[in-house]
Amino acid sequence: MNNHQKDAQPQSTKHNSPPLEDRCVQVLAPATVANLVCGFDVLGMCLHEPNDLMEIRLLEEKKIIIISADGYPLPLDPAQNTAGAPLVEMLNELPGNTGFEVTIHKKIKPGSGIGSSAASAAGAVVGANHLLGDFFSKQDLVRFAMFGEKVASGVKHADNIAPCIYGGITLIRSIYPLDIVPISSPKLFVTIVHPQIEVRTSDARQILRKEVLLKDAIRQWGNIAGLVAGFMQNDLDLIGRSLEDVIIEPVRSILIPGFDEVKLKCKEAGALGGGISGSGPSIFMLSKDEPTAIKVESVMKEIYNRIGLAYHTYVTTINQTGVTIINN
Amino acid sequence: MNNHQKDAQPQSTKHNSPPLEDRCVQVLAPATVANLVCGFDVLGMCLHEPNDLMEIRLLEEKKIIIISADGYPLPLDPAQNTAGAPLVEMLNELPGNTGFEVTIHKKIKPGSGIGSSAASAAGAVVGANHLLGDFFSKQDLVRFAMFGEKVASGVKHADNIAPCIYGGITLIRSIYPLDIVPISSPKLFVTIVHPQIEVRTSDARQILRKEVLLKDAIRQWGNIAGLVAGFMQNDLDLIGRSLEDVIIEPVRSILIPGFDEVKLKCKEAGALGGGISGSGPSIFMLSKDEPTAIKVESVMKEIYNRIGLAYHTYVTTINQTGVTIINN
Repeated sequence: MNNHQKDAQPQSTKHNSPPLEDRCVQVLAPATVANLVCGFDVLGMCLHEPNDLMEIRLLEEKKIIIISADGYPLPLDPAQNTAGAPLVEMLNELPGNTGFEVTIHKKIKPGSGIGSSAASAAGAVVGANHLLGDFFSKQDLVRFAMFGEKVASGVKHADNIAPCIYGGITLIRSIYPLDIVPISSPKLFVTIVHPQIEVRTSDARQILRKEVLLKDAIRQWGNIAGLVAGFMQNDLDLIGRSLEDVIIEPVRSILIPGFDEVKLKCKEAGALGGGISGSGPSIFMLSKDEPTAIKVESVMKEIYNRIGLAYHTYVTTINQTGVTIINN
Repeated sequence: MNNHQKDAQPQSTKHNSPPLEDRCVQVLAPATVANLVCGFDVLGMCLHEPNDLMEIRLLEEKKIIIISADGYPLPLDPAQNTAGAPLVEMLNELPGNTGFEVTIHKKIKPGSGIGSSAASAAGAVVGANHLLGDFFSKQDLVRFAMFGEKVASGVKHADNIAPCIYGGITLIRSIYPLDIVPISSPKLFVTIVHPQIEVRTSDARQILRKEVLLKDAIRQWGNIAGLVAGFMQNDLDLIGRSLEDVIIEPVRSILIPGFDEVKLKCKEAGALGGGISGSGPSIFMLSKDEPTAIKVESVMKEIYNRIGLAYHTYVTTINQTGVTIINN
């Protein structure tokens, strides 16, 4: 948004729209997989399931109200809430006495590694922007939503936020300045297993070394280049070969019981490849078709049943839309 | 080539072809730009100019003869020659008493940083393979030609060899096993300046640190992913933004007088971006059209005239063919 826009009124107030306090929207805010193995901090992918369900209501007062619909113990102070902090930033750039009430049905478990905080943040800003007549650009929304990530993990990153708002697979080439590149991809099936242990994003970040071997970095940038080319050329074999991480995964995977076995056995079952989703503990696998993705799910179940660790699994596809408005 | 193929005779000897000793081919072996700024050791691009001119003749004896046509002091021992070493490897996988005589008109100056050794190696194996009725695959030819790079710099790398043989822009995702990915690109103009100082590839490699900061590596893999996406999406702005190297260029550019000024002024003149070609000292710049590429050339000339350093310049385009057979 530029200064010129700042002087304008939100589009929704220009016409004969209903009174602000009656305006409400429901959104589905989807889970996302950050990193995509070799794209640490720069790649992310949006999923069709699971989703947070959120209701956002316009208020005629410059304030933000957070409501946890299902009793999940979310921080209700907007500045400390992953959905609230982005809206605080949005209000700072909005003229007039506008505010939002956000009701969150938290379906994506925090700490699962599939973008729970990003879903709340992205859902809130996309819903709010819809009520404002799309006053802000998608890039603005990513910029606001990153404040939710800062609340959640202490770091403003966009590798879950960007795919959650843009849909599909996105590259965040740069954060400062923000440079988001949508990457086309073939239809792929995604199997997720979430073993019920907690890996805090901040802990998962802290165990990484600050320096890496140049030869490993070269291998990694060969792989990310191959992965992007594979997605854009619909080359499934190239995608599979490129899903290799010689830097982050060897360190982080030790936090996830069963990781090596899951990866090996899922690939034997036909998965193209996969790895840690975000900072874990969820593991994702890509497959070329649904029967393979279901077979991969059964492999994951078998392993965690044997280990004796509770888990959830999902079989889904890449969501090309991102946050979806479901009624108005 | 598999074992089955090893038992077969080269195709050219199966039919009523002329006697082996009469069979000769001329090839143009083009210059290449390795690294492409953010793709150190994994990206390369083939140029239309300059080219080595080579003649390859089939012999009925298992030996290799190297001839320097223009008196350039090339090593004539095949095992020590960048064109000879690849042919030694090729002969090891070839049945019968076949050999090659290679005459080299060396137009691409060794040590220029635009793939001089790769051109000799690639030209030799492509020409020889043509005379064998394309007995070997392109990937085999890259594998052989890399032995020429080992002779030249001590390291078997393929970031000049692969684009020289495949044409266009290539990603070498991996050397072991060899995984070459052609990357489509828009028509782009390339301006090269070769300041007449020598930077030995082995020296340029030695000054690099063995470890890099993770945050720099992340920035680099964001850029290479952006560059590949930019080429494939014909997004010139994205190509320009992604032509950034935070790891290699800051170290190597100190070996090249005038580098920072050339880069800055060429971008001011309209170039999308560019940087060190291979390990230098040549500098390349990409432009969207020929007038810009010519303007960029005049900027380069002005700078090196002022510095008082002899130089060559080239204005050319991306060569989508690679080594070209020019008569038979």
